[in-house]
Amino acid sequence: MVTISQALKLIDNQVKQSQTEKVQLTKMVGRILAEPIHAPLDLPPFRQSAMDGYAINYLTDQKNYTIKGELAAGSSETFELKAGEAVRIFTGARVPETANAVIMQENCTAIDTLLTLQEDLKLFQHIRNQGDQIKKNSLALESGTLLSPAAVGFISALGIESVEVYRKPKIAIIATGSELIKPGNELSAGKIYESNSFMLQAAIDYYRVGEAEIFSVHDDLLATKTKLIEVMNHADFVLLSGGISAGEYDFVAQALNEIGVEGVFHKVRQKPGKPLYFGVGKNNRYVFALPGNPSAAMTSFLIYVLPALKKFAGAGFNGLQKISGKIQTTYKKNDDRAHLLKAFTDEHSVRILDGQNSDILMSFTHANSIALIPEDAHTVGTDQALEIYLL
Amino acid sequence: MVTISQALKLIDNQVKQSQTEKVQLTKMVGRILAEPIHAPLDLPPFRQSAMDGYAINYLTDQKNYTIKGELAAGSSETFELKAGEAVRIFTGARVPETANAVIMQENCTAIDTLLTLQEDLKLFQHIRNQGDQIKKNSLALESGTLLSPAAVGFISALGIESVEVYRKPKIAIIATGSELIKPGNELSAGKIYESNSFMLQAAIDYYRVGEAEIFSVHDDLLATKTKLIEVMNHADFVLLSGGISAGEYDFVAQALNEIGVEGVFHKVRQKPGKPLYFGVGKNNRYVFALPGNPSAAMTSFLIYVLPALKKFAGAGFNGLQKISGKIQTTYKKNDDRAHLLKAFTDEHSVRILDGQNSDILMSFTHANSIALIPEDAHTVGTDQALEIYLL
Repeated sequence: MVTISQALKLIDNQVKQSQTEKVQLTKMVGRILAEPIHAPLDLPPFRQSAMDGYAINYLTDQKNYTIKGELAAGSSETFELKAGEAVRIFTGARVPETANAVIMQENCTAIDTLLTLQEDLKLFQHIRNQGDQIKKNSLALESGTLLSPAAVGFISALGIESVEVYRKPKIAIIATGSELIKPGNELSAGKIYESNSFMLQAAIDYYRVGEAEIFSVHDDLLATKTKLIEVMNHADFVLLSGGISAGEYDFVAQALNEIGVEGVFHKVRQKPGKPLYFGVGKNNRYVFALPGNPSAAMTSFLIYVLPALKKFAGAGFNGLQKISGKIQTTYKKNDDRAHLLKAFTDEHSVRILDGQNSDILMSFTHANSIALIPEDAHTVGTDQALEIYLL
Repeated sequence: MVTISQALKLIDNQVKQSQTEKVQLTKMVGRILAEPIHAPLDLPPFRQSAMDGYAINYLTDQKNYTIKGELAAGSSETFELKAGEAVRIFTGARVPETANAVIMQENCTAIDTLLTLQEDLKLFQHIRNQGDQIKKNSLALESGTLLSPAAVGFISALGIESVEVYRKPKIAIIATGSELIKPGNELSAGKIYESNSFMLQAAIDYYRVGEAEIFSVHDDLLATKTKLIEVMNHADFVLLSGGISAGEYDFVAQALNEIGVEGVFHKVRQKPGKPLYFGVGKNNRYVFALPGNPSAAMTSFLIYVLPALKKFAGAGFNGLQKISGKIQTTYKKNDDRAHLLKAFTDEHSVRILDGQNSDILMSFTHANSIALIPEDAHTVGTDQALEIYLL
């Protein structure tokens, strides 16, 4: 039996970043860059007007200029401005090489071809120099960068259509249990509706950490082995739920062992989620066997599986955001396991929710966080600081 | 010219929650429930063992029991246990009506059909009662609930396959500007690569607030009107970028006016993003005209458009998460506009990034937040608290 921090370290040690793949502009947001991006051009690519107004060849103390023409954004026209000459210009348009300032339209008057300045100006004002944002060949984005919407915009502005990112994992979810019936079917005596597979698939979708496919098997050793061998042909991660406790119908640990998956740990000193198992199969297939109780499965996914999936996709072993929060009322426990509690956290305090049993999902629908009571804490007093995982 | 808070209020007043639609289990995560869900059954649907062990008909002080058989999870078998009788049982299995406790397998010994208890027990221990989590017909989830992964699991556990949620908006993005070239094409004199459309589409995807399609038009009044009329046939929101300043090639405001869109505001007392426009067309089509400068467009999207899209999809007018943070170094401004600054915020302080110009996206790729300097602040001193929007 390992502690939570030991278990996390063991997973982090095993999981490797994945292969990379090319993605197009419309698909890259949220991905992790697997190559450094160097600017293929200066940005802006030319001297650019930052304002609507007039580009002028300024002469000290001269107020009147002759307007020679007009430059709209996108125009390829050029003007040779002599001293005392001006050209109408718009934001984003190329400033003539012979211009040394742009004056805003609000600060001058134009009558026919006569432009009269109404304010002093500074040389080179309102002109963005070529390469002001970034120079050609310099580093635009480091490898490992999370491609935020702004990063996608920046890549597009550099004229780049596709980049190399880490591949996201393919995940197989296997719900085990002879008592499970899929929603939409009649519930017969002794059966319950299956929830873990849809819940885990929803979590993978919600946190954008991969693509998951759902499978199910009855409590049967051979069926479990057969299904595992089948999904491990294509899935990077296998998440099983149920069948990992010590009952005679818990075939998951045996099945994994018999097909050659190396157990890294089995059982964590925590509540819920004590039966949690993690192992690694041939070709770096990562296997998590989660508890069958839905709330324990959800918690185990969030604490252990989420950072592993993120690391595989290039993001480092980071799962939920962790903050410190003050517990609202006293909490007592009488074991030496860490407790992972469904909680509602706001800027003031952390409220431990009713319904902490490992089968109860209803309370989880009101939770926005998981509060960690450490292994060695027995009474946690009001206002004591706890580690909080934000959902 | 309105202030930021006036602009937000005007948007909130206009945008209405959308129609609803049915979604299936595999598609509902992240959506907002548009109906209350009542439990169609008790959960658990029967008395359930919470442990692997033995269900017994307990007699005070009696240690020895006769094992009558076995109940696996999912079994529909029933046993009539007389006082002093037991049945092998596994987690999740239905507890016989005649049993009044479950004893964990670790706390007893079984030799053939003789079970011997090794600890005291409490009546009804380790038994989950029918309806313990929720009773049939009672409220499971309120209308307006965000469907988290756990909520999806809970809905599945109730045997429900589909629910009614608010529809997400369809969004048309129109990039305006004769200077714009799509990445992948040659850049000719005076042109730049277009970035706003891909960036806005990426943001809509990243924040899961709808489906966006990209269009573009040159700086031309008729072309702008034609494109607007076309997209407003099907799009709930139209986001334009560029063409909304006061230059002769800025046709967006005129085009919107001529096709009957009612302007709600035009120009906000802020930097960047002063030209921002919001209007409403026939059939509740919401139109945002964003500045053409990429960083100003991104900021305006995050502050104004994001909460509007979320409200349309049922979530209330809430955009980015807001926190309070302390500025790391003094910031000065000499105008009466609010400044929205690209910033990096950690648990200690808020660092205002270099490269605040409205055309600079590179600094945005290093930002994790936007810091707000209020209209009336001129010097913000070190450690002064600011309103921070977390990206």
